[in-house]
Amino acid sequence: MKQTPKNIAIIGSGLVGSLLAIYLRKYGHSITVFDRRPDIRGIEFSGRSINLAMSNRGWTALEEVGIAEDIRKIGIPLDKRAMHVVGKEEYYQKYGKEGEAIWSISRGVLNKRMIDLAETAGVHFRFEEKVWDIDLPEAKIYTGASEKSEWKSYQYEMVFGCDGAFSRVRHKMQRRSRFDYSQDFIDVGYKELTIPPNTGGTHKLDKHSFHIWPRGKFMLIAMPNLDGSFTCTLFLPFEGDISFKKLTTRAEAKHFFKTYFPNVSKDIENLTEDFFNNPTSAMVTMKCYPWTYWDKVALVGDSAHAVVPFYGQGMNAGFEDIYCLNNIIGKFGDDWEAIFRTYQEERKPNADAIAELSYRNFIEMSSKTADSNFLLQKKIEKHFADKYPDKWIPVYSRVTFSNRPYAEALSIGDNQELIMKQIMQIPNIADIWDSMEVENKILDLLS
Amino acid sequence: MKQTPKNIAIIGSGLVGSLLAIYLRKYGHSITVFDRRPDIRGIEFSGRSINLAMSNRGWTALEEVGIAEDIRKIGIPLDKRAMHVVGKEEYYQKYGKEGEAIWSISRGVLNKRMIDLAETAGVHFRFEEKVWDIDLPEAKIYTGASEKSEWKSYQYEMVFGCDGAFSRVRHKMQRRSRFDYSQDFIDVGYKELTIPPNTGGTHKLDKHSFHIWPRGKFMLIAMPNLDGSFTCTLFLPFEGDISFKKLTTRAEAKHFFKTYFPNVSKDIENLTEDFFNNPTSAMVTMKCYPWTYWDKVALVGDSAHAVVPFYGQGMNAGFEDIYCLNNIIGKFGDDWEAIFRTYQEERKPNADAIAELSYRNFIEMSSKTADSNFLLQKKIEKHFADKYPDKWIPVYSRVTFSNRPYAEALSIGDNQELIMKQIMQIPNIADIWDSMEVENKILDLLS
Repeated sequence: MKQTPKNIAIIGSGLVGSLLAIYLRKYGHSITVFDRRPDIRGIEFSGRSINLAMSNRGWTALEEVGIAEDIRKIGIPLDKRAMHVVGKEEYYQKYGKEGEAIWSISRGVLNKRMIDLAETAGVHFRFEEKVWDIDLPEAKIYTGASEKSEWKSYQYEMVFGCDGAFSRVRHKMQRRSRFDYSQDFIDVGYKELTIPPNTGGTHKLDKHSFHIWPRGKFMLIAMPNLDGSFTCTLFLPFEGDISFKKLTTRAEAKHFFKTYFPNVSKDIENLTEDFFNNPTSAMVTMKCYPWTYWDKVALVGDSAHAVVPFYGQGMNAGFEDIYCLNNIIGKFGDDWEAIFRTYQEERKPNADAIAELSYRNFIEMSSKTADSNFLLQKKIEKHFADKYPDKWIPVYSRVTFSNRPYAEALSIGDNQELIMKQIMQIPNIADIWDSMEVENKILDLLS
Repeated sequence: MKQTPKNIAIIGSGLVGSLLAIYLRKYGHSITVFDRRPDIRGIEFSGRSINLAMSNRGWTALEEVGIAEDIRKIGIPLDKRAMHVVGKEEYYQKYGKEGEAIWSISRGVLNKRMIDLAETAGVHFRFEEKVWDIDLPEAKIYTGASEKSEWKSYQYEMVFGCDGAFSRVRHKMQRRSRFDYSQDFIDVGYKELTIPPNTGGTHKLDKHSFHIWPRGKFMLIAMPNLDGSFTCTLFLPFEGDISFKKLTTRAEAKHFFKTYFPNVSKDIENLTEDFFNNPTSAMVTMKCYPWTYWDKVALVGDSAHAVVPFYGQGMNAGFEDIYCLNNIIGKFGDDWEAIFRTYQEERKPNADAIAELSYRNFIEMSSKTADSNFLLQKKIEKHFADKYPDKWIPVYSRVTFSNRPYAEALSIGDNQELIMKQIMQIPNIADIWDSMEVENKILDLLS
């Protein structure tokens, strides 16, 4: 549907802000993107980012505006997990069916490319200009050097807040009455580390795997980059026996890596250096509602729904916001009040669902991987799913390799969980887990 | 225990701020209370306040500093609910045992009296001075005419945030990492209305009752004032068939009162006038954590834990914060880091419990009062509690007429609920609800 061109501001030049800019340019809108940071294309980007895992929802959103092929060039497909378990050989778990993969992409590299693409599409960027205030009903924004300095004002017809988990736009909405809001931090932090390439530029670990060193309360992950390096992320409690708080000297950090991650210890100098150079970051689940103000202001991506990173869906969910918003624009044309209302009503339950799924994955990783009952349950599920791929699609596949709503994946997953609860109560389940009896019982419960 | 006198700022001259000032003066601290509003003693106070229901916890906190008798003079004890149910004569429900009562006190009258008492105790008040920023580690506050005007700075040794549900002090803490926060609005609003006294200054309704007109999705309550008037509160959904949104003309409002509250219709002119003069207010549950910053800053009362008003415990919970804080000071003396840590750890579960209980009361009032199963359950509980007053103390009594922790009331209440769930599953329970069989089953489940 056609749209009357409008003068639109987007706050935030991150992944979601850049992609939204590209989408909105297609309708002929005039787009200015504000960012308080300098142009990422001119600076070294690193230090506090988990590599991205682009999956179906992300690709779908990129395909819609014809830039997916461009982005595939800077990604590496990962078709499996590589598990590095203590006392076991490295082993692999396929993610999905043949051809299904998630893509490892460096956040910095992707963001630079997206800004290039947006600029080519005619988007105007204003870097190093910090937005301090927004007049919501007027779609007017105020920028300046500091909160107390003199401000410059800009009048727009619409403002999109794509300014992340600590959004200034949302912050302004939050001070209104009847705005629901929550931020919940988990007691685990993360730190970026790097495994450098081999001298010849090749990867030191299998490059088509998502590498995981699960250690109960903490874990290390590694995702490949194009240059042969791996971006690693160490997830570790802030406080406690084994924690960021306890690792204060180089000797302690070295000992920690040597003890728990022996097969990366050849890179220990590098890991230890990164450990003290890079910041420790916190992780938060942020929810809010409403996401829009009249037909003037809307939140998109992390500013509306930040999630913990344990499902690898943060960026995918943000890109899906844009894809859905675009479909809704297609239905309502110039009626932005209807567009915004439909957008928030449609997306909110899905954002809540991926927040819940992401948080559950954190709990699962940190407290259940050592539970033999849990492992048995997973084994039974896999056994059944392999035999009846149409009857039992794992939640992970529904989230990662489909475009069906997150809320649907969550509710089907809950139902699967109820079924498995009954299966696990079969008295001698550990002995008969792969029997016809168990199989038939699951089939029975499913129907 | 003795304390080294400190220079302390309290932000907010409301009920909690004034009482905390009185408590801290007892230790010889120098106290300055800042408030952005003018001195309430010089202005007419009305328009958006539900009358207060002072109960045990509130009285205990006042008694500790010897001002309870002073405050009793401005309150009216209510020993029962007066129920105004459609199609029934007005009837009464005693609150507790003989002598147990909640006290109706006007917020304005109480606040004025508390500020007087604080001033007499040597507390210094700075009204009409708005705090815009707080340097948390330095306990330094910044005030000024507006956010962008020039600010004045004050250096203190400690700062207490008693500035209510929309606390500026908490707002500053909230921008830090790892600060958990939530605000959840309910879809019902409220409006203050007044039933004036009879010509002779007497009350038009029974003055020792808490009057309730329950109407399912909405309700009216009335609490007596000393001058013969009643402060009424209309709770009504913001949107929907019967809602604030639908009552836009005087004729509509009159019709509404006449239809649903016939026995107050002689005061309909007054009610209608108030309806359009007074604001419609929203209700929020606000939770956060931590409540303190080092040994420098602490939140007390609504700034730390705002609750919906359906248990009448908002002020009581805030006063209990102070009472507990004072006990902790008694244990730790000058070690304010230990005081603040113990204070937040002890109070947080209780604040969460009263938030939950208050919210449940809202749900109960708005959706369960018409449910015959629910009413039968309440009847059985009452029957049993009357017979075994030591074995079954209703949650309401635990919250209102005791000083035991809120968290305990909640958990015992949950246990009672589990027992009643089993009782309600007895096949012919409606016929045998007052039988020995049911009685024995409850006794059995209790032990």
